[in-house]
Amino acid sequence: MINAILASTSTLHNQEYLEYLIPQLPELYKNVEEVLFIPYARPGGISHEEYTAKAAEAFSKAGIKVKGINEFKDPVDAVKQAQGIFTGGGNTFLLVSELYRNKVMNAIKEVVKNGTPYMGTSAGTNIGGLSMQTTNDMPIIYPPSFQTLGLVPFNINPHYLDPDPNSEHKGETRETRIKEFHGLNSQPVIGLREGSWLELKDNKVTLKGKLQARVFKKDKLPFEIDTETDLTDLN
Amino acid sequence: MINAILASTSTLHNQEYLEYLIPQLPELYKNVEEVLFIPYARPGGISHEEYTAKAAEAFSKAGIKVKGINEFKDPVDAVKQAQGIFTGGGNTFLLVSELYRNKVMNAIKEVVKNGTPYMGTSAGTNIGGLSMQTTNDMPIIYPPSFQTLGLVPFNINPHYLDPDPNSEHKGETRETRIKEFHGLNSQPVIGLREGSWLELKDNKVTLKGKLQARVFKKDKLPFEIDTETDLTDLN
Repeated sequence: MINAILASTSTLHNQEYLEYLIPQLPELYKNVEEVLFIPYARPGGISHEEYTAKAAEAFSKAGIKVKGINEFKDPVDAVKQAQGIFTGGGNTFLLVSELYRNKVMNAIKEVVKNGTPYMGTSAGTNIGGLSMQTTNDMPIIYPPSFQTLGLVPFNINPHYLDPDPNSEHKGETRETRIKEFHGLNSQPVIGLREGSWLELKDNKVTLKGKLQARVFKKDKLPFEIDTETDLTDLN
Repeated sequence: MINAILASTSTLHNQEYLEYLIPQLPELYKNVEEVLFIPYARPGGISHEEYTAKAAEAFSKAGIKVKGINEFKDPVDAVKQAQGIFTGGGNTFLLVSELYRNKVMNAIKEVVKNGTPYMGTSAGTNIGGLSMQTTNDMPIIYPPSFQTLGLVPFNINPHYLDPDPNSEHKGETRETRIKEFHGLNSQPVIGLREGSWLELKDNKVTLKGKLQARVFKKDKLPFEIDTETDLTDLN
């Protein structure tokens, strides 16, 4: 039974890091004293230590301690022993590369499927999908695979951004990119706007937050879903 | 001696496909009757045939015929026999995967370095750099390598987009993404705005078009360069 929060972003406009998610932490991390933090995605290139300190500061507001996976000699053992896990955002290619290099991709998948509570934001949410192939990030490193945790039976596009009708820019819109994904892949994609998250609980996947999300299915027109929609069978 | 145009985009706002580049074609493709078109990047998932027809229509305005590489039985031979090559935009991961799958990545590199005129737009320009790692595209397919043609001694970011100072969106800016690239890679990156192109001619690389471009070097502050700047030694 999976207990997880997969959030589009760590930070909302004019808010502090994780501010809008702090109220969710006591329920997700019930009876958890210390969370294992995965800082591998290194947003803006910051160090594992800096990033862990940032997560620890935010989690302290919910009375939960944080320890970085980099502080452990054996990362696989750290995952197996963890009371809870939080994977921060940054570059998804780097995150996935490091998860494979440290041989923890499968270990995280296993413990989370067995009930260890998990939270991801941005890149940490992207890896909750079947593959990382709907990331927005640059391929700054070549990972050994694009396959990820598969906590949900579809793919996730975090930081989903609606097309700007006034834009004169000719780079592909997010919707076009996802359409190109569906030219080669069949799983649905959920575009999670900033402020939305998926709650995985009691064998159910539910859209949370105040906003709608956008669902993309191969060869279908995309459509909006309301918050509290049950996404358990989206596949 | 390389003769090439590496353009940020195929299409400018309120213009037709390739419109602003048509005046450049007679000089680049001097004495060329027929150009070999590489439609592998399939923008929006269109077919090779549709994409080739689109390129042919534009090139006809410069009196040049177009044949798609997909029309040849032996793609490597098609590259070797080509009088000129044009690689269109779309998804860079798909383009690079197909170039490797059809074993033409090295063949193109070789003939272009030996003088076969080459034009790329968007993804077709991205592959002109040392690697495709500064693409903006989604990883919709897993290519066997991120290494590309290396016609210039640096990386290219096409469709370069300045940060929007009014944006409330928390996804990474282009500049942040390139900074993350430089956390792991050392080659410079040139951010080419839409309407800019690199001209490779007489052993020189020159910025063309009306706009400035933005140069990113590892551990340095990014800076602007004017059109007509010589970039031959940017590495």
